[in-house]
Amino acid sequence: MLNVLTPDQVLRLIESAFQPNCGIVTRAHGAVVGDVLAEDVVASEYVPDFDRSTVDGYAVRSKDTFGCSDAIPAILPVIGGVQMGETPDFKLAPSTCAAIPTGGALPEGADAAVMVEYTEDYGDGTVGILKSAAPGQNLIFRGDDVKPGDVLFSKGRKLTASDIGALAALGKMKLQVEAPFSVGVISTGDELVSPEEVPGPGQVRDVNTPMLLALLKEWGVESVDFGRVPDDEALLLERVRQASERCDMVLISGGSSVGQKDAVCRVLESLGEVLMHGIAIKPGKPTILARTNDGKPLVGLPGHPAAAYYIARLFVRSLVDRLRGESHPEQTVTAKLTESVNANHGRAQITACQLEQKDGETFAVPIRSKSGLITQLARADGFFVIPRDCEGLPQGAAVDVIIHH
Amino acid sequence: MLNVLTPDQVLRLIESAFQPNCGIVTRAHGAVVGDVLAEDVVASEYVPDFDRSTVDGYAVRSKDTFGCSDAIPAILPVIGGVQMGETPDFKLAPSTCAAIPTGGALPEGADAAVMVEYTEDYGDGTVGILKSAAPGQNLIFRGDDVKPGDVLFSKGRKLTASDIGALAALGKMKLQVEAPFSVGVISTGDELVSPEEVPGPGQVRDVNTPMLLALLKEWGVESVDFGRVPDDEALLLERVRQASERCDMVLISGGSSVGQKDAVCRVLESLGEVLMHGIAIKPGKPTILARTNDGKPLVGLPGHPAAAYYIARLFVRSLVDRLRGESHPEQTVTAKLTESVNANHGRAQITACQLEQKDGETFAVPIRSKSGLITQLARADGFFVIPRDCEGLPQGAAVDVIIHH
Repeated sequence: MLNVLTPDQVLRLIESAFQPNCGIVTRAHGAVVGDVLAEDVVASEYVPDFDRSTVDGYAVRSKDTFGCSDAIPAILPVIGGVQMGETPDFKLAPSTCAAIPTGGALPEGADAAVMVEYTEDYGDGTVGILKSAAPGQNLIFRGDDVKPGDVLFSKGRKLTASDIGALAALGKMKLQVEAPFSVGVISTGDELVSPEEVPGPGQVRDVNTPMLLALLKEWGVESVDFGRVPDDEALLLERVRQASERCDMVLISGGSSVGQKDAVCRVLESLGEVLMHGIAIKPGKPTILARTNDGKPLVGLPGHPAAAYYIARLFVRSLVDRLRGESHPEQTVTAKLTESVNANHGRAQITACQLEQKDGETFAVPIRSKSGLITQLARADGFFVIPRDCEGLPQGAAVDVIIHH
Repeated sequence: MLNVLTPDQVLRLIESAFQPNCGIVTRAHGAVVGDVLAEDVVASEYVPDFDRSTVDGYAVRSKDTFGCSDAIPAILPVIGGVQMGETPDFKLAPSTCAAIPTGGALPEGADAAVMVEYTEDYGDGTVGILKSAAPGQNLIFRGDDVKPGDVLFSKGRKLTASDIGALAALGKMKLQVEAPFSVGVISTGDELVSPEEVPGPGQVRDVNTPMLLALLKEWGVESVDFGRVPDDEALLLERVRQASERCDMVLISGGSSVGQKDAVCRVLESLGEVLMHGIAIKPGKPTILARTNDGKPLVGLPGHPAAAYYIARLFVRSLVDRLRGESHPEQTVTAKLTESVNANHGRAQITACQLEQKDGETFAVPIRSKSGLITQLARADGFFVIPRDCEGLPQGAAVDVIIHH
């Protein structure tokens, strides 16, 4: 088979053949967690935008309180009350005060707020102020936090929940962000039926579609299900074309026979350029990587679900990371092999395993199964890769196990 | 204020007053990543469900190939071809073979498959087998992987993408899973306007709703936005009741004035029991925790967005974890204070900070701001908590900073 690459060559090819996707979209009604800003966000207003009290109590002229105490309160007539959400329609004359709630706008003339705990209501329209207030005390002034022109966030920032709060506070609800990335998923093969059907003789359920959609969800990547396509090259071509127009990447899985694999390959060729036709890894060799004329990756994955899963974890994730300009190294656990494992010289070999804890050490128990669909997917805790230049590993050797999350 | 608890008391109250939510729902068309199984999943069929080839090549009776080699091939007439997805309608007679694709069903009579690479097509309806095949070679037998009655997954398992694949392979698309958890979010206050509006005099944008929805999304928790409610106790009661009927937990934020806080408190009291009325923490004291008669938590959060954010990170997350029977300890970074920080004896104190790297060490630069809405939410990298029995920390002290993800 032409153009079979080693795992390392595949990872280098991904870096060299694809560029981060630079699409930009406008969020009209607020960004969402995980959005990456495609513009600097500059404040256009003051926060807060009016002088306000930080306590429940009375707005005062601080001068009127100087020298007062529990013993000698400053007795001030209450000339009004500030309502939340309204600008006071009165002015504070000397030697008067006004009730004010936390967050209430400071009336003109006032320059401090006194906590209600330090006042006494005499019930006759006057209160006693029991503690002197310094100018500015218990107030936040207009623009204390942000002024117009302040750069709040720089382009490239990945937004968190606290950022979403800050943007809402500034009314920055219309924003340019990097276009969300989406992956189309297609399964192909006459033998495939929906997982909800009982397969007839010679049929198998389509495992790859729900599994790949679930994996993309684990990665936080949007996906579009383009369904199952029978062994009809024209139909497959049309479906892959649709998916590549709508999405940033397309995963085509299935085609486990030579004829099916060739059909997938011809379809990918006709939509762009096939960059790689096979990976020197077992299982997972029949993996095809192509690039559309506008630079989008098309990936032909093995039909065997466990192989498709491994290739997705080992290579498709790197491709997604490359296009999104991110990096998500796989979480691994170092474990000791409980028994020796033979490997095929010349190809990297993936081995599913279970993990066991014993005497504070972590052990990897290789799963030996020639079919291994369920065994490898459901009963394994993870898998490890034996490099292609290694003929096997002895009992007790340390392996880095990639966990099935 | 009655019933003000310390942070530790609040965490203990959450453990004692709430039980994991035990609702169960049926997924009719397949579970999704993160679903927790509410039943054991037992295989009801064989995987694979027919004997099949693992290679592209020829189905043979192994006996017919014994002793053959490159020099002395076994020459066998090709009596047919197996089609993918079909049961062969022929039987393999002695000294014959049939073409078979990878995954193809083994015809009756055959007991091995030979890879096409070890055969030679003579073009006259016969092929030469160049390598002898052992019985069972290159085959997977019915039930090799799973047999009816095998327990595939136990109740309580949190499903991963590989599990979703295994369930699809077994056709287990109708499943009992723990009910997905959802949180209702309500903001209250006459002064609040939508973040898309320009606030009039005395008005402020509703920051808490988008921020809390974003935070719940960061946590992977479903949320329902119940909008803004003006200062009208009857309306608020009705909205909180609706939210508590539909969701597993309700967050009511806002109410920064005493009157608003009292209204929220009365509403929560009338829907169940108020368990806590204030946390000895700054900012964040005006936090109310109540429990409906059917055991759901209702949380009154502070109106100030930074305070609401901190209380959500420190306490609401624990409440969500408790109800879901999970645990998500906050990710912290240990850093050295660049300057001393005073704290109020008797209350835990939250301080926002930026993180800086210098000479391989991580430093926390406290943010000093009395308002701090944007400063605390957007310009901080995280925050740390000074315990209530500590009067402050000197320059150089180590603090555990909770990161704004």
